[in-house]
Amino acid sequence: MATATAARNFSLARLLFGPPLLTADAPHQTINKKVGLAVFASDALSSVAYATQEILIVLAFAGVAAFGLSIPISMAIVTLLIVLTISYRQTIYAYPGGGGAYIVARDNLGEAPAQTAGAALLTDYILTVSVSVSSGVAQITSAFPGVYPYRVEIALGLIALITLVNLRGVKESGRVFAIPTYFFVLLALLMIGAGLVQLAAGTLGASPNTEVVEHTLEPLALFLVLRAFASGCTALTGVEAISNGITAFREPRSKNAARTLIAMSGLLGVLFIGITLLANQIHVVAGESVKETVISQIARTVYGTTPLYYITLMATTIILIMAANTSYADFPRLGALHAGDGFLPKQLTWRGRRLVFSWGIFTLASVASMLIIVFQAETTRLIPLYAIGVFLSFTLSQAGMVVRWRKIGRMKPGEAVQAHGSVMRYDPHWRGKQLVNAAGALMTFVVMIVFAIAKFRDGAWIVVVLVPTLVFVFFRIHYHYRDVAAILSQGARWPSIRRRPVKTVALVDDVHAGTINLINFAKSLGVPWTAVHVAIDPDKAERVKQKWQERVGEEAYLKILTSPYRNLVDPVHKYIEGLLAELPQGYVHVIVGHLVMDNLVEQALHQNAAIALNLALQDLKRVAVTTVPYQLDLHINGNSAREHGLPESATRT
Amino acid sequence: MATATAARNFSLARLLFGPPLLTADAPHQTINKKVGLAVFASDALSSVAYATQEILIVLAFAGVAAFGLSIPISMAIVTLLIVLTISYRQTIYAYPGGGGAYIVARDNLGEAPAQTAGAALLTDYILTVSVSVSSGVAQITSAFPGVYPYRVEIALGLIALITLVNLRGVKESGRVFAIPTYFFVLLALLMIGAGLVQLAAGTLGASPNTEVVEHTLEPLALFLVLRAFASGCTALTGVEAISNGITAFREPRSKNAARTLIAMSGLLGVLFIGITLLANQIHVVAGESVKETVISQIARTVYGTTPLYYITLMATTIILIMAANTSYADFPRLGALHAGDGFLPKQLTWRGRRLVFSWGIFTLASVASMLIIVFQAETTRLIPLYAIGVFLSFTLSQAGMVVRWRKIGRMKPGEAVQAHGSVMRYDPHWRGKQLVNAAGALMTFVVMIVFAIAKFRDGAWIVVVLVPTLVFVFFRIHYHYRDVAAILSQGARWPSIRRRPVKTVALVDDVHAGTINLINFAKSLGVPWTAVHVAIDPDKAERVKQKWQERVGEEAYLKILTSPYRNLVDPVHKYIEGLLAELPQGYVHVIVGHLVMDNLVEQALHQNAAIALNLALQDLKRVAVTTVPYQLDLHINGNSAREHGLPESATRT
Repeated sequence: MATATAARNFSLARLLFGPPLLTADAPHQTINKKVGLAVFASDALSSVAYATQEILIVLAFAGVAAFGLSIPISMAIVTLLIVLTISYRQTIYAYPGGGGAYIVARDNLGEAPAQTAGAALLTDYILTVSVSVSSGVAQITSAFPGVYPYRVEIALGLIALITLVNLRGVKESGRVFAIPTYFFVLLALLMIGAGLVQLAAGTLGASPNTEVVEHTLEPLALFLVLRAFASGCTALTGVEAISNGITAFREPRSKNAARTLIAMSGLLGVLFIGITLLANQIHVVAGESVKETVISQIARTVYGTTPLYYITLMATTIILIMAANTSYADFPRLGALHAGDGFLPKQLTWRGRRLVFSWGIFTLASVASMLIIVFQAETTRLIPLYAIGVFLSFTLSQAGMVVRWRKIGRMKPGEAVQAHGSVMRYDPHWRGKQLVNAAGALMTFVVMIVFAIAKFRDGAWIVVVLVPTLVFVFFRIHYHYRDVAAILSQGARWPSIRRRPVKTVALVDDVHAGTINLINFAKSLGVPWTAVHVAIDPDKAERVKQKWQERVGEEAYLKILTSPYRNLVDPVHKYIEGLLAELPQGYVHVIVGHLVMDNLVEQALHQNAAIALNLALQDLKRVAVTTVPYQLDLHINGNSAREHGLPESATRT
Repeated sequence: MATATAARNFSLARLLFGPPLLTADAPHQTINKKVGLAVFASDALSSVAYATQEILIVLAFAGVAAFGLSIPISMAIVTLLIVLTISYRQTIYAYPGGGGAYIVARDNLGEAPAQTAGAALLTDYILTVSVSVSSGVAQITSAFPGVYPYRVEIALGLIALITLVNLRGVKESGRVFAIPTYFFVLLALLMIGAGLVQLAAGTLGASPNTEVVEHTLEPLALFLVLRAFASGCTALTGVEAISNGITAFREPRSKNAARTLIAMSGLLGVLFIGITLLANQIHVVAGESVKETVISQIARTVYGTTPLYYITLMATTIILIMAANTSYADFPRLGALHAGDGFLPKQLTWRGRRLVFSWGIFTLASVASMLIIVFQAETTRLIPLYAIGVFLSFTLSQAGMVVRWRKIGRMKPGEAVQAHGSVMRYDPHWRGKQLVNAAGALMTFVVMIVFAIAKFRDGAWIVVVLVPTLVFVFFRIHYHYRDVAAILSQGARWPSIRRRPVKTVALVDDVHAGTINLINFAKSLGVPWTAVHVAIDPDKAERVKQKWQERVGEEAYLKILTSPYRNLVDPVHKYIEGLLAELPQGYVHVIVGHLVMDNLVEQALHQNAAIALNLALQDLKRVAVTTVPYQLDLHINGNSAREHGLPESATRT
């Protein structure tokens, strides 16, 4: 029975996702700095797991001798990190209510830059999932090379798991996040420390990896260095996370968030430089074909294949999965923000039974999984798509801040203005602060252009095409919603409320118990009604006509519509057009029976014409279509013909 | 606009499939023997393109020295062919109205054997498509080895092409079939003749193929010989085709069909033995890893890489595609026969706009394509699944004939009885004829068992499991239709025809022009009605309530249903259950508005709750759901807000 099925589905949903949550249950809790660092840092910190490696893979094209260049490149990236940190610190103070790129750009630059920032961020959140999970799986396959052929399956399994957890809804209890983040930081620092001690003592070995990298060597050109730099810039993804989540911090919010940002950037810089240094000292093997990750090679060199090696890789894998998980909070939230402003489908604003934005989570999981399949869970192949989006949003957010400082500069000392998303107060140091943001905007803009050019052929072109396309689509959606709202609210189009004539047409496929139910409904409405049968099969039409005479008789006349092309809806459409012409002010009301089976498989064995009719008639104005279900209850109350002991011949209709 | 879209779709369908055909246009034409041979022989004759090769591939496991065994094996298969031909000749005379295995088994053995024969044949028709197309592509890749990596794509493309042609509907004008069939027969005979002349002259060379086959050699055991024999039996697939299509022949039907059968078998035997002989003489290279087909090697040896070589391969490819094409006639026709008897979904009996059984064609194309993908268009990997089905249907059809002869034997001389599918006349030679059919049944049964055991691990297990499963499903479907028909026709369940009370509930999402249309429809029906809004978002509910007061006012009261879990259907379901309890004999009529957009993409941007409600409420008895569409016509008559010059703020509802 259908209700029984519903009950079963309900239980399955309950088991997987937990009981539904009340709207009033939406969580409102704040976190301290320590927990805040753990919650927001996993995305940024986890990128050290692949950033150094990606620099080396590019340099490998110029031969192992070029690996030494990874150190100045890393230094340049850390410099960029420092500028970004100072710049974002100012954003955090300016937007204590949350200063994501979308909000800052919308507030200061206008709709188009805001939608661009949003499109870039949404793209990047998806890539964070694909890249982090791929890199996490690469750590696993480094420790256990035997599972390498199953890396795509493992990656998809992990995404499914993260998706399930997020559909249940994470009550962002920071402590759960704190443990793996600090665990990773601890182990990464321990590894770097132990490596440096061994280096000082002269006991640091070389990478035990024996894979042979063969390349047709390219000359070491500036372009190659720029490509290596671009790859390394993926280390900076996630730096913006804290500026999105300021409201989660305890008061004084901005101060706590700013301090957390500085702590995070400090840690990120130390880990990144440390890993790059050690990678150079142990002469890691790197290249597109090398299957062991740099982290794994360093840990094996420092620790040997001891439990500590495995624990280090496990911690790295877990923080990468946590990084993917942060996108599951950010993507649906930003998607809902866009949708709320009418730039994405409204469905993204719906909160599911567990209060999460289910549609956003599904979209994220599907696209990220698709990328994993297309790029075979190879981090290096995904990197060229990554980071452009983040750097574009960096640029827009800081350009927004530059505009904001100019407005502040025009205010009178002591003045304060309530702006859209924040309070603007005069600041005597506005010129200096504007300069910092301008430097940040300029630098990230240059990096973005470098990245796009250097990686264009490797895949960056996809993002270069995708982001403007998304912005275009966002605006198309926006205009659509605006137009619909305009039409629906146009006073001139509102019809007057009054009773109009109605003519009911009952579509009869056959004459049986369900048909009588249909007739009763038609009769009960109290408006004129008529019955119609479409003669797809002329022989059957003859039988139906005869049965109608016997069973329904003078109650109503059954009109037969011919259908020379064996089509159900075309003759009905034509017939109704005729009726509409007879009733210029009235409604034509089509009613159609629907045999309700106990399950989808049995339902698929029947014609299910109601849906087709609904679709086919919806272009006609003043036509309403009613489905009158007739429940067979086949499997209850011993309704089967066999149980009734009916001979088979008696059951042919 | 929706009608415009429909018109566009219509044109596309017209372009691809041609204009719709009238039911009365169903073709009724008969063919002579020459054309009959061409129409029905392509399936059987084309199998010589792979049968010899498949024997050799198995023998290759025992080394090239074992290849000589292919000659006695082929002789044994031709002996089987002779018995089958005599046996089927009798079927053709017994069933001038068409004597397919399904009909003969149903007539003489009962429902279960008939369904088994049908399941076996349906399975085999699918495999005919996969095997023939794969073998056809193998001929192409033999001539042009460069396209080998794209063999799956080519095979899928060919299936798509055949599908398209068949959806257009082939007006089986036999002449189109005659050309390629006779072309192939001519070229194959020419190749064999030229080869034999060269052999006699001592100028026949050796296969120019230089691929090296490496095998860990197996001892030449009886089991291996049986496997080779089983592989070769695929040459016999298609022999039954004429017995299915007797009605297509000119009068005297049976005589013409029988003569065509003998001609076909003769040709098949000659081609098969000839190819096997030549393959041995030129020392073809055969093995699972060999990419060049045996036909290609023979043609290259006899002709060199001349145009004649390419023409021979082309003719072979085309006849293989024609063989696949015959399944496109047989599978949908047999599927419709099953469906008409209630053993498969009724949809298979629907004739599409071009009078073809579209659902059957789609099913065949999908499953055959799936097999091509799974088995990578490798004929050798598909062979173990093939032929079991055909031999099972051979056995059942001839066992049916044995039973029929026993019945005839019990009749009085000169007596004639009108049986289900044929006329039974006393025949003094019934004992001898029964013996022939019994021999045929026994031999094909033994071959089937040999095939199933010898190829079990290679893939035959799939068919061994599949056929009984299909038979089980067929009967489940049959019982379902029987039970539904029984319930619908049970007099006791027929309600009396009389007017009952109706209460209409209008579901209101928002108050706009579409809502007024909904209200007007509710009001026009003349039964009591009420309006309801589900408060998924409590703030919005407040706004809707206020707008209702302003715009609709005292016309009707708007009831607000709370929905703490943000669910639309659950509160409605509960509310309606309450109304049903108040109206124990009446109907609850739910009406819901539906904003009709101009295309599917725009439609997807809206809530489309009507479908969800229809599904969610269909378990409730005495509840009908009406959709009242409201067409926005966004893109016509300058309805866009921009064109109206409305400011954006004015369009927010």
